[in-house]
Amino acid sequence: MAKQEDNFKNVISHAKEYGYVFQSSEIYDGLSAVYDYAQNGVELKKNIREYWWKAMVQMNENIVGLDSAIFMHPTTWKASGHVDAFNDPLIDNKDSKKRYRADVLIEDHVAKIEAKIEKEVSKAAKRFGDAFDQEQFEATNPRVLRYKEEADTIMKRMAGSLEKEDLQDVKNLIEELGIACPLSGSKNWTDVKQFNLMFGTKLGASAESAMDLYLRPETAQGIFVNFLNVQKTGRMKIPFGIAQVGKAFRNEIVARQFIFRMREFEQMEMQFFIKPGTQGEWYETWKERRMKWHLSLGIGEENYRFHDHEKLAHYADAAADIEFRFPFGLKELEGIHSRTDFDLGRHEEFSGKKLQYFDPETQESYVPYVIETSIGLDRMFLAVFSNALQEETLENGSTRTVLKLPAVLAPTKVAILPLVKKDGLPEVAMQLLEELQWDFNVTYDEKDAVGRRYRRQDAVGTPFCVTVDHQTLEDNTVTLRYRDSMEQIRIPMSEVAAKVAGEVDMKHWLQKMK
Amino acid sequence: MAKQEDNFKNVISHAKEYGYVFQSSEIYDGLSAVYDYAQNGVELKKNIREYWWKAMVQMNENIVGLDSAIFMHPTTWKASGHVDAFNDPLIDNKDSKKRYRADVLIEDHVAKIEAKIEKEVSKAAKRFGDAFDQEQFEATNPRVLRYKEEADTIMKRMAGSLEKEDLQDVKNLIEELGIACPLSGSKNWTDVKQFNLMFGTKLGASAESAMDLYLRPETAQGIFVNFLNVQKTGRMKIPFGIAQVGKAFRNEIVARQFIFRMREFEQMEMQFFIKPGTQGEWYETWKERRMKWHLSLGIGEENYRFHDHEKLAHYADAAADIEFRFPFGLKELEGIHSRTDFDLGRHEEFSGKKLQYFDPETQESYVPYVIETSIGLDRMFLAVFSNALQEETLENGSTRTVLKLPAVLAPTKVAILPLVKKDGLPEVAMQLLEELQWDFNVTYDEKDAVGRRYRRQDAVGTPFCVTVDHQTLEDNTVTLRYRDSMEQIRIPMSEVAAKVAGEVDMKHWLQKMK
Repeated sequence: MAKQEDNFKNVISHAKEYGYVFQSSEIYDGLSAVYDYAQNGVELKKNIREYWWKAMVQMNENIVGLDSAIFMHPTTWKASGHVDAFNDPLIDNKDSKKRYRADVLIEDHVAKIEAKIEKEVSKAAKRFGDAFDQEQFEATNPRVLRYKEEADTIMKRMAGSLEKEDLQDVKNLIEELGIACPLSGSKNWTDVKQFNLMFGTKLGASAESAMDLYLRPETAQGIFVNFLNVQKTGRMKIPFGIAQVGKAFRNEIVARQFIFRMREFEQMEMQFFIKPGTQGEWYETWKERRMKWHLSLGIGEENYRFHDHEKLAHYADAAADIEFRFPFGLKELEGIHSRTDFDLGRHEEFSGKKLQYFDPETQESYVPYVIETSIGLDRMFLAVFSNALQEETLENGSTRTVLKLPAVLAPTKVAILPLVKKDGLPEVAMQLLEELQWDFNVTYDEKDAVGRRYRRQDAVGTPFCVTVDHQTLEDNTVTLRYRDSMEQIRIPMSEVAAKVAGEVDMKHWLQKMK
Repeated sequence: MAKQEDNFKNVISHAKEYGYVFQSSEIYDGLSAVYDYAQNGVELKKNIREYWWKAMVQMNENIVGLDSAIFMHPTTWKASGHVDAFNDPLIDNKDSKKRYRADVLIEDHVAKIEAKIEKEVSKAAKRFGDAFDQEQFEATNPRVLRYKEEADTIMKRMAGSLEKEDLQDVKNLIEELGIACPLSGSKNWTDVKQFNLMFGTKLGASAESAMDLYLRPETAQGIFVNFLNVQKTGRMKIPFGIAQVGKAFRNEIVARQFIFRMREFEQMEMQFFIKPGTQGEWYETWKERRMKWHLSLGIGEENYRFHDHEKLAHYADAAADIEFRFPFGLKELEGIHSRTDFDLGRHEEFSGKKLQYFDPETQESYVPYVIETSIGLDRMFLAVFSNALQEETLENGSTRTVLKLPAVLAPTKVAILPLVKKDGLPEVAMQLLEELQWDFNVTYDEKDAVGRRYRRQDAVGTPFCVTVDHQTLEDNTVTLRYRDSMEQIRIPMSEVAAKVAGEVDMKHWLQKMK
């Protein structure tokens, strides 16, 4: 656990130090749970976005894109259920005046019980050495069993009360467990209240005509309200999909874990419209396709797993997460949901307009069913970035920090380094840069010894370094160095562009999905 | 004028009909001055964004990107001056309860006077026929001269009052001119008040800890507050630039002209940090470079002009617009501003942090000066789209509607059409599609006669159609049709990809800038 935390701290500080992610408004002491993508982060994010878009929209003749506005008519959010049900249960401590999510207070309490279990396990592991069977121990040790039951009982009661909206019982639970405010230590709590997570604003200037708007809490509804316009003007036939990338906003009370849960974030969502009755097979198809997309990046199959939802949201008849091994454990990276006709049906009801598809073959009209794939762009960024960051011990015993980003996603593809800052080498290097920058993001570095420059590019994640030296002046060859293997090869300068293109072209990477 | 309005109406309806731009939340009767980009619009917008990004960031070793959040610390907007001065003067009509921009009411009144001038001119033009000298007529006709003086006096007085913040005089002017509410006809006005254009929202849930936030009204400040972090982590040396594309929001009271002025819009901005004293030459350099970028798209030099600002904003020591010939006249498309050290200086003052650059050569520290280039992505979209839409009369006397988008920006590059829906032609066409879609956005259409399909692709703006016919089955050749010339050539199927790539590759288009 301590190691995990250290790893995560390294990820955050590396992201800052190498120009990937900055705290928003840092000069004004920051804005909580809001981050800015810096000069390298913006390129990594752009490349992930493009890799998704190409795989979803360009490669599928029956999927088209959309870019709907963040501002939507407020009735949208009544229809979607967000006005009534997109809430967190909050509780205030009367002494510290600090506000908490009631469910998080309880979960933190349960986490402490689970920590006790871990402690018992590690004590026993030490005692028994190699002979230790953790599974058996956890299944039989009375103390562990008691802790487990305790944790389980609390979680079940909380889930039940929240589901029944019995907020009084949630408060009772907090009091019975003796949970104190982490800040003041006081147990003097207010009642639990539901708090809507949507950010509100007002459109228009006059008090009378001003309209209460929300910043969209998800991009999906922009697709649903445009479904018929896209279908008709695009002459789409079912099955077909609409894909969208864009910002969404949630006023999270407890936003933590760096860019994993932010108040302003970016989603990549696709809604696939299908004939009712075919959702089972399309759900499986999309689970499989999305997993293939992830695996095409070569980050390692062992870092992903499906997690099927047992408890389903009100709009879904099946749902699964693709979980990823983040520095803080296996967590949701993407969701695949069979949303039925819930959303289109609700928009029909609230708008009074028919949102039906006329099937030219069967001559019937129906409200399509929907399979959704929904991935957080920022989470994908964190998955790729945290997995890539590695400390390696080299043969000579020294360590190097290297950011092994998939070359297709790396912000800068090539660094061009003149061996020394004289003898005309910088001029030749700049000439090569001007040639390569038509095709890739390229950088130039002439400061410090070349070994140090290699380390710098390793840490930034640049997959290729090209060094121009004195031999270059004679025979027009350069050294091409690979970030991951540190292997160096000598090739004609004229072959650099093709060599790099072969390794970073999205087409080649996407072909791994097939 | 009537023709202009008709043209503009055509642009708007074509944008809807062919899947470029929809009214936002249309099923809920829309949201005023907010639009969604549909399946073709999203691709055109994406291509413009990418064309800008490549030209600014990829092609310039000393310009890097940034993607800062929409939410920023509220002090940012005090420092930038937006809290105090980003206002519109508003006035309410007491009878209709309708709110107006006071300056727009006055401008509309002046427009009526100008219409009278036009009427005199066209009457005289008819009377004098070919002998008519408009310039001389306007300079000598007493009636015209009186109208001109009247309009001029009004505009000068309004500008002066607004500059002095003498809102009482703006109201007096409205009353003296006898301006009535267009809705009620009443002249019963309230006082004029300043109204801030920023959208507000609240971060955090508890009343005590909630923070008043604004949705950013421009992307530039995100660059300024990150200036030093980017410079240090990116080891940037002056002169260098930071570029950003992102959403901004303005609560416009009078938002009109389709996507030209929206409440939610997207900016592409670049701030170039330079040594004080060099701003004159960099300002000229960026004016020239940005114009070259526009001209590289081949939309026609005659549609652009520079407009130098005579009256400068408080932060600028020089400023010019690149104006474009929109369907409603020559209007601002991009701004180039010499912003001095105003912004960085203000952020130093409000944050208490030094925002200075240490020059390693002179060993001196200074607050850099800034040249800004700022273009509205939505305006650029409207410029490209409206210019591309044309009605042509063909040799046979029929007309065709064609959207002559620059091929590099077109949403779909190739439409693949089997001549008939049988004899295995659709299968061959689909095979070609699967091959081409690794490289481009490709579409498939098998419905209706091929001539009708060509017209459909002309109207959508697809630069190439490839027709698979019976000869294809024999010799693997296809017909390649050019949208603009309607020329058709017969080429081997295996050459289609390279042929199209040569015409749509951004690299080739960007080379026209040099």
